[in-house]
Amino acid sequence: MPKLSIVKIGGAVIEDPVKLASFLADFATLDGHKILVHGGGKKASLWAEKLGIPVHIKDGRRVTDAATLELITGIYGGQVNKNIVAILQGMNCNALGLSGADGNALQAIKRPVKAIDYGFVGDISQVNTTLFSNLLEQNISPVCCAITHDGNGQLFNTNADTIAAEIGKAMAAHFTTVLYYCFELPGVMKDINDPASLIEYITEESYTDLLVNNVISAGMLPKLYNAFDALKGGVKEVGIGSSKMICNTTPYTSIKLK
Amino acid sequence: MPKLSIVKIGGAVIEDPVKLASFLADFATLDGHKILVHGGGKKASLWAEKLGIPVHIKDGRRVTDAATLELITGIYGGQVNKNIVAILQGMNCNALGLSGADGNALQAIKRPVKAIDYGFVGDISQVNTTLFSNLLEQNISPVCCAITHDGNGQLFNTNADTIAAEIGKAMAAHFTTVLYYCFELPGVMKDINDPASLIEYITEESYTDLLVNNVISAGMLPKLYNAFDALKGGVKEVGIGSSKMICNTTPYTSIKLK
Repeated sequence: MPKLSIVKIGGAVIEDPVKLASFLADFATLDGHKILVHGGGKKASLWAEKLGIPVHIKDGRRVTDAATLELITGIYGGQVNKNIVAILQGMNCNALGLSGADGNALQAIKRPVKAIDYGFVGDISQVNTTLFSNLLEQNISPVCCAITHDGNGQLFNTNADTIAAEIGKAMAAHFTTVLYYCFELPGVMKDINDPASLIEYITEESYTDLLVNNVISAGMLPKLYNAFDALKGGVKEVGIGSSKMICNTTPYTSIKLK
Repeated sequence: MPKLSIVKIGGAVIEDPVKLASFLADFATLDGHKILVHGGGKKASLWAEKLGIPVHIKDGRRVTDAATLELITGIYGGQVNKNIVAILQGMNCNALGLSGADGNALQAIKRPVKAIDYGFVGDISQVNTTLFSNLLEQNISPVCCAITHDGNGQLFNTNADTIAAEIGKAMAAHFTTVLYYCFELPGVMKDINDPASLIEYITEESYTDLLVNNVISAGMLPKLYNAFDALKGGVKEVGIGSSKMICNTTPYTSIKLK
């Protein structure tokens, strides 16, 4: 099967134009089919304040109301997405930006209301593998923002890590898929302050040991949950590390089932 | 050749959610291949004020500085574009939003500085007909916002009427192309206040007569310039009228070379 790299970048890279350009230069030279998934960054909060859009927190969790959804659709789906696409085009990478609504790329259902109503937050129900495959076959690299839709006219805010994992699982039937989670640390660390404590390999077995021994910080758990979810769904390898890991110039945490 | 409809809508339809939904329902049921091109609306000015982004006017013309470009990339390329795409998806129209950077759809060059430097405003140099044709063949309807790029990482603000005309000219080699300019009037009028004064047909010959006799208001001239430019470039017919014209339920101005 052909190879597919799915790379997710978060706020820290997006907010720094120099880091972003450097990362995109690496992404542009990555061999084979590739998909970029990006988060948002802090501009949404900055603009919300200036525009007088209140931040809604319920039980410690951020809620996406209509005004916030409109704001992040503009910032993530417009400003950040189109800026990334234009820069990649300038690097001879034929990028094409997508929200989940575009070409019905990513369909979701509103997160069910239990203890908390998260508002316009969607959990992915369907990945349009035909659309992604057709674009990749034309040597187009999809650039996905963290927005999905319900197929009935409603957009949703959706976690970018989860989007990357769901695309990976869905595409694994057609491609040998590797998923890279780039963030501000060198990878999964035993001690966040000690670069030498990077864990270079994690398997399902060693993951259980790490959990039992409380080695992994709470902040890493959702990323690792997504990683194993993707691996069990057919993704071959998940990398967690700095944005430099995609060009293999720096150590990172490589996660495989075995 | 297969038929292609290119429909351009402006601010008045976009700003009114009821009018927008009604128009999109008509667009969704339009037979054959179709492309939607949309302008912006007044939200950009409203948000610019709230965000403290100054409006730059030079010699009576609006100039697009970096902050304004960022703002409209968010509003036109994000909020407006994704909202339209999501609504069309809910109407079983497989829409996909594009800025000019996406898939290198529309390349432009910065408008040359003569008496005025318009800032980040681009004049279209190239339409990627392969991309548009591939999408249309997959029964995907491109939804284009009024943003282009230079191929070197720079986005540009570009007039939506011109974008529609340039796409029409480029696609005319492959499709029997009809271009619809929807706006707030029933069409080209002899007297703006008298609906009965609608001019139902304009040819190159009658256009010259209308110009010589000063029948056409100054505001219509750029639209008519674009219309004849498109017709001379191979577009079969240009319609100017209300957004209802695309379903042939209302009279409009039909423009053909002969």
